Amino acid sequence: MDLTPTPQDRFAFGLWTIGWRADDPFGAPTRERLDPVEAVNGLAEIGAYGITFHDDDLIPFGTPAAERTAIIERFRKALDETGLVVPTATTNLFGHPVFKDGALTAKDRDVRRFALRKVARNIDLAAELGAQTYVFWGGREGSEAEAAYDPTAALERYREGLNALTHYVKEQGYQLRFAVEPKPNEPRGDILLPTIGHALAFIQTLDHPEMVGVNPEVGHEQMAGLNAVHGYAQALWQGKLFHIDLNGQHGPRYDQDLVFGHGDLINAFFLVDLLENGGYDGPRHFDYKPLRTEDKAGVWESARANMRTYLILRERARQFRADPEVAEARKAARLDQLSVPTLDEGETVSGVLSEELDVEEAAQRGAANARLQQLAVEHLMGAR
Amino acid sequence: MDLTPTPQDRFAFGLWTIGWRADDPFGAPTRERLDPVEAVNGLAEIGAYGITFHDDDLIPFGTPAAERTAIIERFRKALDETGLVVPTATTNLFGHPVFKDGALTAKDRDVRRFALRKVARNIDLAAELGAQTYVFWGGREGSEAEAAYDPTAALERYREGLNALTHYVKEQGYQLRFAVEPKPNEPRGDILLPTIGHALAFIQTLDHPEMVGVNPEVGHEQMAGLNAVHGYAQALWQGKLFHIDLNGQHGPRYDQDLVFGHGDLINAFFLVDLLENGGYDGPRHFDYKPLRTEDKAGVWESARANMRTYLILRERARQFRADPEVAEARKAARLDQLSVPTLDEGETVSGVLSEELDVEEAAQRGAANARLQQLAVEHLMGAR
Amino acid sequence: MDLTPTPQDRFAFGLWTIGWRADDPFGAPTRERLDPVEAVNGLAEIGAYGITFHDDDLIPFGTPAAERTAIIERFRKALDETGLVVPTATTNLFGHPVFKDGALTAKDRDVRRFALRKVARNIDLAAELGAQTYVFWGGREGSEAEAAYDPTAALERYREGLNALTHYVKEQGYQLRFAVEPKPNEPRGDILLPTIGHALAFIQTLDHPEMVGVNPEVGHEQMAGLNAVHGYAQALWQGKLFHIDLNGQHGPRYDQDLVFGHGDLINAFFLVDLLENGGYDGPRHFDYKPLRTEDKAGVWESARANMRTYLILRERARQFRADPEVAEARKAARLDQLSVPTLDEGETVSGVLSEELDVEEAAQRGAANARLQQLAVEHLMGAR
Amino acid sequence: MDLTPTPQDRFAFGLWTIGWRADDPFGAPTRERLDPVEAVNGLAEIGAYGITFHDDDLIPFGTPAAERTAIIERFRKALDETGLVVPTATTNLFGHPVFKDGALTAKDRDVRRFALRKVARNIDLAAELGAQTYVFWGGREGSEAEAAYDPTAALERYREGLNALTHYVKEQGYQLRFAVEPKPNEPRGDILLPTIGHALAFIQTLDHPEMVGVNPEVGHEQMAGLNAVHGYAQALWQGKLFHIDLNGQHGPRYDQDLVFGHGDLINAFFLVDLLENGGYDGPRHFDYKPLRTEDKAGVWESARANMRTYLILRERARQFRADPEVAEARKAARLDQLSVPTLDEGETVSGVLSEELDVEEAAQRGAANARLQQLAVEHLMGAR
Repeated sequence: MDLTPTPQDRFAFGLWTIGWRADDPFGAPTRERLDPVEAVNGLAEIGAYGITFHDDDLIPFGTPAAERTAIIERFRKALDETGLVVPTATTNLFGHPVFKDGALTAKDRDVRRFALRKVARNIDLAAELGAQTYVFWGGREGSEAEAAYDPTAALERYREGLNALTHYVKEQGYQLRFAVEPKPNEPRGDILLPTIGHALAFIQTLDHPEMVGVNPEVGHEQMAGLNAVHGYAQALWQGKLFHIDLNGQHGPRYDQDLVFGHGDLINAFFLVDLLENGGYDGPRHFDYKPLRTEDKAGVWESARANMRTYLILRERARQFRADPEVAEARKAARLDQLSVPTLDEGETVSGVLSEELDVEEAAQRGAANARLQQLAVEHLMGAR
Repeated sequence: MDLTPTPQDRFAFGLWTIGWRADDPFGAPTRERLDPVEAVNGLAEIGAYGITFHDDDLIPFGTPAAERTAIIERFRKALDETGLVVPTATTNLFGHPVFKDGALTAKDRDVRRFALRKVARNIDLAAELGAQTYVFWGGREGSEAEAAYDPTAALERYREGLNALTHYVKEQGYQLRFAVEPKPNEPRGDILLPTIGHALAFIQTLDHPEMVGVNPEVGHEQMAGLNAVHGYAQALWQGKLFHIDLNGQHGPRYDQDLVFGHGDLINAFFLVDLLENGGYDGPRHFDYKPLRTEDKAGVWESARANMRTYLILRERARQFRADPEVAEARKAARLDQLSVPTLDEGETVSGVLSEELDVEEAAQRGAANARLQQLAVEHLMGAR
Repeated sequence: MDLTPTPQDRFAFGLWTIGWRADDPFGAPTRERLDPVEAVNGLAEIGAYGITFHDDDLIPFGTPAAERTAIIERFRKALDETGLVVPTATTNLFGHPVFKDGALTAKDRDVRRFALRKVARNIDLAAELGAQTYVFWGGREGSEAEAAYDPTAALERYREGLNALTHYVKEQGYQLRFAVEPKPNEPRGDILLPTIGHALAFIQTLDHPEMVGVNPEVGHEQMAGLNAVHGYAQALWQGKLFHIDLNGQHGPRYDQDLVFGHGDLINAFFLVDLLENGGYDGPRHFDYKPLRTEDKAGVWESARANMRTYLILRERARQFRADPEVAEARKAARLDQLSVPTLDEGETVSGVLSEELDVEEAAQRGAANARLQQLAVEHLMGAR
Repeated sequence: MDLTPTPQDRFAFGLWTIGWRADDPFGAPTRERLDPVEAVNGLAEIGAYGITFHDDDLIPFGTPAAERTAIIERFRKALDETGLVVPTATTNLFGHPVFKDGALTAKDRDVRRFALRKVARNIDLAAELGAQTYVFWGGREGSEAEAAYDPTAALERYREGLNALTHYVKEQGYQLRFAVEPKPNEPRGDILLPTIGHALAFIQTLDHPEMVGVNPEVGHEQMAGLNAVHGYAQALWQGKLFHIDLNGQHGPRYDQDLVFGHGDLINAFFLVDLLENGGYDGPRHFDYKPLRTEDKAGVWESARANMRTYLILRERARQFRADPEVAEARKAARLDQLSVPTLDEGETVSGVLSEELDVEEAAQRGAANARLQQLAVEHLMGAR
């Protein structure tokens, strides 16, 4: 099994992942800031094809215009030299204290307008760098104090904000699509659009729903105890899986951003299977954090680990699907029958009311799930 | 404070709540079956206005046709005598072993067709009894074994099933609306449409989305660690809060179905505030389970407790909103500003790009959330 | 890799696992009762060495004395014929309604006394059948209604009960040790002794702490979001890991009792490594539930799956430990240094107060955790 | 109801609570550092009696000796002027990068020795300032990478560390007791001694267990989905509730440190009842974080909120216990019977084996829990 990633694998990393300085709620940074150019070079070297960023990752908040231009030029040069692409960008609407009670849904209208401008400005840059997707993670859109919150008004403002920005993109003629990233909580007690489902439902209310999809993150769904595969599948089914974040998490607790596969490995296996066989064609984008315990060597070690795990799982999924015993077990589990419509063309409920079922006989049929799941687990472990 | 419920309060209970025989995964029933007529009489006596049921609650699975008619007549007579209404009904698609691997999404097509008929039959009864809402809780639509599941096909089948049933309702000329009830897990490892969001998103894909809303349950959302108030608010905002289930839960764990308010009391307070002031006009429907430890007296005690808690919280919410200090604190928290559009009529993002904000000044503004939340908690405790 | 279990592997199953009739809070049984003799024969056939039981699993509650004797004789005969042993037994103090508000901590004293007798009677049988361990799972010792509970008095009664039973065992001259099984909740809202830690602490207060250890269950610890490996390790470290329950779970939610490894596979890998290398010498006992969807063939399929997964993980752990690259990575992570005492023999804190550390230099050292964890995950996947 | 706190109420706050600069994993500080003297004055003004601190809260890490002395003198002067006491102190063994992979259980022995010195130094100061309790929160003692961890060795090192420090305290003749603070996770993936139970069990292994108790935090237990009241009760029952941290949390998720009562209010009510009536006599110590959204006024508002909520709950608990209807309901629930020993003096299990119980009759008895719980909830809401 060749575990050397190539650009054809379309692995991408956030600049904020390998560049995370490793401060947490209880501790100071353990690593130096990573020069974005070093990030680009390093990612190219380990076989990634893309890098993504929040505006402030690349251009620190408050950087004067001239310096901003210089930073961008230097970054673009590194991209050109390495062939790395920027498939996606996003806005940091959560780090600066001005966003402490929200950005696009801040109570202060001037803050909301500032947030719009901050997004627009980075959208310009994203378009300039050739990004196809622009991510919205509303990490500060939420509340810890229900009495001081109005979720309905917040939804209204978030809708207004996204609408205004879709109009901006159209007006500018950019080819960008938006991807909303849900998260249940942290840093806010409750975040607006807490799951894939809430985001999908919200998107339908927008002026240009066709321009907006989701960017789910494995760990975020698992923080709500949800099955990430099912959420990604629903997004795919609704034509909305515009982008993905891959990482690891141990269920409901703080956002761990572990290496992909280092949380729920079985779920990761089925997620890779879904992505490879379910029609997703975007980047395999990792949004993880190298452990705070690691030095720079450990950072790159962990970056590679994400890709290696993905490649192993991809191969295991391939073998699983190719195994004749699995094919037979899937048949025994009548999995294929789930794709057969319940009613024939033209049939209606009232038309089948007189049909009868031997309920007790039907109840005896075993579902044969146990065997199939074990086959998957054994394939995952390379034991077949 | 008058805590005597009246029909104007529109409190309703599931027949399966007060009638629960109190068996659980580790223990046998501790109570006798409750005669549905006794349930009707008892609910009328304690001041409820409505009773709801699954088909099998009223008419045990497999009851012969003649007996079925007699049961319905007897039930209807009790309704007539007490004035109790049936605002809502639903189908038990989870209890019988035939549904062990799904009902509308069973792999066996004949089981799916049987499920359609079972629903249709009870829809007929619901319409006959004057119900306005028909609830779909797909408790068995899901999986524990990812290898033996196909979430995409399952969504497809669920869509097909609901579509067929909306067509049936229209064909029959019934005035019923459907309400989908989400739940993350239990009895399945992962249930299709795990949260309010997923259900809202799914509904948009139906042939008649206008006929279908949600029936969220407080505890189900809290099992995913979500803020029930926010979920209900999004459903209201999307015009989809067709029905509600009220109860209590202690976060992610087994489905507790506690008395309303006996779980997260503060969230219950804000939920009552939302329901009373946010435009919800359906029944206040309790879907709880009297503790397995209780005898019949305890069952009715607990039923009353749900309504008493609701009435107290309603009064506390009224006082909270009427308190001038609260009004002042809401102003100080700029809560009203959240309802002001971010952009003026006609303004665009590109039109405000040159606007400037003194970010550091804006970042200094306190959100004044702490005081407002404490005011709410003190009102809730009757301490103001 | 030979995945055929042998008695030397010491795999044991509860009679209630393969014999589970598959009823759950929302559905009726999907399977017939399994004849205990068939269970014995089946387990012997698939390579298990032991079977365990609750009194009521073998002898239904309320069985007359003569019939009881006949059941036992028949069971013993099957054991003799197959060579299967009964390493462990336990009492069902949760199924019958009489225990609905507790058994050894019921408020009704006569129920507590009945519970003592029920335990004693099955201890006699356990001793007769040669069991070495007697498990106490206090599934009904707990509460959902804090106002009607007194956790201090409950602890006092539980202590009294266990003390009385240790005295009984000594009086009878049995060689049994007790193992307390913790669980955070379900079927009670909160169960006494919710985790391994609480049980270990409680045991220290008993009259014969040396006779009492713990019987942790993987899923129970994970229902509290805890790392099962760490809990088992603390129990081992305190000399109290008398027995174990192996299964799978997806974090905080209802008790899933999945096949071992079908929940958090990485944690299962490290648990096997701990059990094999950390000094545990009891049975590898599976306390899982075959999925409710399965027929009898699926039941046995799932039973085999537990053992196969264990054997694969055992082999993977062996390979992991034998890999020179792992040895080198462990050294790089200074894992060996954790076993070196912090102070030399005779050194005291006051004696080292003047020592100095170059804190900034020390802070630079990478922990090299990322590489080691990835090596483990790759070994687990058979990818090295 | 007088809600003005007085020193007799023994309310204490960590300097790090009101002084928290409000940075979180996703955002920069929103507030200035609070001068410790201003903290002392402010706390005295709002009616607190005590202030507690980590060494680094008062004396920033790395402060030269002379400056340290000046800081202490200035702090002590403020204490003297206000009458505020320092009941408790603790060590910051988590903030500096040197502790990134542990302090007393760091793999690097020199870091462990440095940690011992850091603790000892602040123990000297604590003793000098008259503290009675010294808290150990091992926030960095843990792991995210099981392969790079050895929980057994870590327990051994933690034991060694605490032993060495108890010896130091005895050697110095200080009157300090230690209190171990458990937490399940965050900032580490899994923290050593994750719950009250694990800490209580660990303490028994120490050289001087009588010197060491626990300092549980409401939110930490709730992060594991545990009932805080039950954990505190077990600690009290084992004579180990040396100190407490009060705050609020919404179940398993990141550590919220909300105002006391702003999480699970019902649990807070019963906790106050336990503390007031169960024999706890230490400070009522709040370990919360003023929301990041608040300015300085909001900080003090939230500090007051903790005390007000406690006082209201204390009064509600008093009224609950004084209500004759409650007394009657407790009797109906046979709550008093739980305190009656199961066996008479001298009775043994074998002596009661022939006793008989009418099991079916006993199973019929209702537990009357529902009514009592509702009475409590209504008292809590001031509705009786």
